[in-house]
Amino acid sequence: MVRVAVDFPAWLTDRARHIETVLDHFLPEASTQPQRLHEAMRYAVLGGGKRVRAALVYAAGQASLQANTPASAQLMALDHAAAAVELIHAYSLVHDDLPCMDDDALRRGRPTVHVQYDEATAMLAADALQPLAFELLGRMPVAPALVVQAVQQLARAAGSLGMVGGQAIDCDSVNRVLAPDDLQTMHKMKTGAMLEASVVLGGIVAGASSTVRQGLDRYAAAMGLAFQVVDDILDVTADTATLGKTAGKDAAGNKPTYVSVLGLQPSRQFLQQLHHQAREALLPLGPSAELLGCLADFIVNRDH
Amino acid sequence: MVRVAVDFPAWLTDRARHIETVLDHFLPEASTQPQRLHEAMRYAVLGGGKRVRAALVYAAGQASLQANTPASAQLMALDHAAAAVELIHAYSLVHDDLPCMDDDALRRGRPTVHVQYDEATAMLAADALQPLAFELLGRMPVAPALVVQAVQQLARAAGSLGMVGGQAIDCDSVNRVLAPDDLQTMHKMKTGAMLEASVVLGGIVAGASSTVRQGLDRYAAAMGLAFQVVDDILDVTADTATLGKTAGKDAAGNKPTYVSVLGLQPSRQFLQQLHHQAREALLPLGPSAELLGCLADFIVNRDH
Repeated sequence: MVRVAVDFPAWLTDRARHIETVLDHFLPEASTQPQRLHEAMRYAVLGGGKRVRAALVYAAGQASLQANTPASAQLMALDHAAAAVELIHAYSLVHDDLPCMDDDALRRGRPTVHVQYDEATAMLAADALQPLAFELLGRMPVAPALVVQAVQQLARAAGSLGMVGGQAIDCDSVNRVLAPDDLQTMHKMKTGAMLEASVVLGGIVAGASSTVRQGLDRYAAAMGLAFQVVDDILDVTADTATLGKTAGKDAAGNKPTYVSVLGLQPSRQFLQQLHHQAREALLPLGPSAELLGCLADFIVNRDH
Repeated sequence: MVRVAVDFPAWLTDRARHIETVLDHFLPEASTQPQRLHEAMRYAVLGGGKRVRAALVYAAGQASLQANTPASAQLMALDHAAAAVELIHAYSLVHDDLPCMDDDALRRGRPTVHVQYDEATAMLAADALQPLAFELLGRMPVAPALVVQAVQQLARAAGSLGMVGGQAIDCDSVNRVLAPDDLQTMHKMKTGAMLEASVVLGGIVAGASSTVRQGLDRYAAAMGLAFQVVDDILDVTADTATLGKTAGKDAAGNKPTYVSVLGLQPSRQFLQQLHHQAREALLPLGPSAELLGCLADFIVNRDH
């Protein structure tokens, strides 16, 4: 087992900077034809965000590497996997912001991609981010059998029974009352699937044992939901400047949220339960899972 | 080498029927939640089309299988690969038809997906077809190393340096004059990349030798272009009823086409050259490549 000296804030900052460099490297240059498309792809992906998904890949990788010194190939593969989940996340935000979906003009404090470019370019740029994610997995320098597992995981998480399915339910739920169970199903798919995939991919790439994989799965399931509960709470408690996106948007759009279905205080209690579940799932993994534990604390306590 | 008894029209009809069954099997059922999304995915994919890409996968597979009886695993893998290219093609048509792109109401003689459902559902359904394609490749029952090659091929062909890049150039070229070379680059990316990938995937899955792969590559390059030249000729010579989509659309939209750049008669001559190149590339492959040869004839002589 690897002992981790945890200076978590420094680690998180380092990982966010690192994935930015990795993504910059993997994205086609803006000077490559078609230039406008590649500019839009880079605009959509680069320039920040919390990079929680990449951090989950790296932290799960750290928890899964065995006693021997991690090979550079494994660390490179973690870069590919972390970039892949960030690319899928970025594409989904671009499509989500389009006029036919949420029609949002602001994202991370900047104009959304279709406002900065145009709708067709935004749609196509996002369309091209998706295969780039799978190409990066295809180029991971690990055993082909692990690559195949990773492709399957990402494909399922990004598909109609995962992220896109959750977005579709979300769209259909505007102005409708959702039962708490249905709300949970929607969020498990919409946000949870890709957060879970991030943890699982980190484990696959780093060669996690089946015991570690089980712990990661339980941690991932709890955190996938927790992330969305926090989002829903922040939608009603934070302001636009802090969020970097339009606050109160979901409430104004009559979208069901944890807060609208359960109420604010019960949502906060549910969040604490999920936090506890995630922390408990890590116990069998020992100190090498401390980064995942810190990430759980960070996600639950974030203010934007 | 496998001797092929060629009744080409019967073979093509059989393959079109077969891939329809395969796609029907691989697509989530319409009764699976979220139902409206899954209905839209099935509407987008099923119900016909020429299935040229699937036929190219099967024909290239036929040309690549070695003397020993083809294993059922290889034939299953060809089904996965053929379905994957059809899914990518189907998603690209759905996005292409959206109001922010070509704004087309008719496709294969039926209302386009956003007309039949709505824009958000059409966009999301197409978004979900893309990862399903990669999931199917990930589930091919062949050596993981071949799966990884296939994933890389499809990802590159579908990405910003392939199909989506070509669509972006196409969008930017409205009302502009394109030089013949630029037009060719656009078409090589927009249509050619996925047609080439279909041929190459068939070869990979069936374990093509390097000699066969070289022949397939040259054939694929010629046919990738030929297909678009035929499309451009049909846009000005066929009527809407025969095409099953709006004829004269590209000319009316001031989109550069082979016909607008070269003229009708020179476009026809160029098409014959490409046909000849494709046929010649198959010579080293012998009689097992006869289906690919017939497919070239079919593509060049089609009237819709």
